[in-house]
Amino acid sequence: MAAGGELQLLGSWYSPYAIRAKVALGLKGLSYQYLEEDLSSKSDLLLKSNPVHKKVPVLVHGGRPVCESLVVVQYVDEAWAGTGPPLLPADARDRATARFWAAFIDDKFFKAWRELFRSTTDGQRAEAFGNVVPQVETLEQAFMECSKGKAFFGGDAIGLADIALGSFLVWIQVVDEVSGTKLLDGARFPGLAAWAERFLSVDAVKDAMPEFERLLEHYKGFLAKLASPAGPGGYS
Amino acid sequence: MAAGGELQLLGSWYSPYAIRAKVALGLKGLSYQYLEEDLSSKSDLLLKSNPVHKKVPVLVHGGRPVCESLVVVQYVDEAWAGTGPPLLPADARDRATARFWAAFIDDKFFKAWRELFRSTTDGQRAEAFGNVVPQVETLEQAFMECSKGKAFFGGDAIGLADIALGSFLVWIQVVDEVSGTKLLDGARFPGLAAWAERFLSVDAVKDAMPEFERLLEHYKGFLAKLASPAGPGGYS
Repeated sequence: MAAGGELQLLGSWYSPYAIRAKVALGLKGLSYQYLEEDLSSKSDLLLKSNPVHKKVPVLVHGGRPVCESLVVVQYVDEAWAGTGPPLLPADARDRATARFWAAFIDDKFFKAWRELFRSTTDGQRAEAFGNVVPQVETLEQAFMECSKGKAFFGGDAIGLADIALGSFLVWIQVVDEVSGTKLLDGARFPGLAAWAERFLSVDAVKDAMPEFERLLEHYKGFLAKLASPAGPGGYS
Repeated sequence: MAAGGELQLLGSWYSPYAIRAKVALGLKGLSYQYLEEDLSSKSDLLLKSNPVHKKVPVLVHGGRPVCESLVVVQYVDEAWAGTGPPLLPADARDRATARFWAAFIDDKFFKAWRELFRSTTDGQRAEAFGNVVPQVETLEQAFMECSKGKAFFGGDAIGLADIALGSFLVWIQVVDEVSGTKLLDGARFPGLAAWAERFLSVDAVKDAMPEFERLLEHYKGFLAKLASPAGPGGYS
């Protein structure tokens, strides 16, 4: 571990944000202690390490926390700059492009897709799906422009924007399964559909991703709670 | 200009996000052509340069656009790394801290303060003010921890978090004036109140900031439109 110090990751197995941190650490080949958080009963370490947001992931490095998934990915890239592949390109403009799309994924794509994720009726799902498709169209075009014929948003290797979007891929599959939709349809979004297959075939990604069936059961449980008067809790 | 190429900034004089770009360029001592946008009738150059968000600021460098204010500030820092003072610290952890607070300012502080900004009655203002104070308390504590007794969030020099929050300072004064509030009260928030004075006294900041009386008139016009049936347009 080039930057020294003990490394711990506080995560939750189904959190796309925690998956981002796992993928970044995995790509860099870093060893760390993984601490699974029960988000319905957060640990003192999580509350102490991220008092502002009280959310995963938190990367604790040498006893000091780094919070917020995109900040964590950039931290891992910079603190271990000499270890493993870079997660952001060297060129300033390419770095700006990666940060722009990572922000778009959180601000625009996720907010639209979240409505599909939280839908419990066919009517809600149809409306939400219609609203998320334009965001995916934007991402398809972004992928074509960023990748320039290469495998990933980041070019030949996985970068910040790949990690930002890729962290949702199994969630997208699970929501598709329940909704009867196919968001990253290869006929409609050939670039992203092929990208998703490539992303999911990378070892560091495979190690970080939740298992489809387990996530499907978890999601069905969430939807059941969402439809109950007490509400789901835990998600926001 | 170390990184070469023509430099243009598309902004709006009252946009805190455009102010961030102006402060960054000013601190670096870069010359650029400033193009004022009428946000009620956006230019073809803006629509072409930022088709995703259609918002200012856009930094056009050598004919190619960089969008989103925090992305622009980091781009300016990285593309002109050898010119003027750094806008992010060298240390990976300090960089993560700056990015964390810049994100907090946009995600938490701004969303709460925006409700105060959009309030048109005393009742709305009292409630909104009550909701923004906890965010400012968090920022006061953050300032104490980040600055470690120095002048700015970034230490001795202005950095990303300073620019992110500082871009709102004249807006905060103007909303305070109309609301009869004092958000950065020195008795309650001594660190931030002194920081704000220091920030506003820096030449590159003074050059970028809107004039108080002009912004006050602009804000009163906005509130009048907000209270009218047609609504204000332009802001979101």
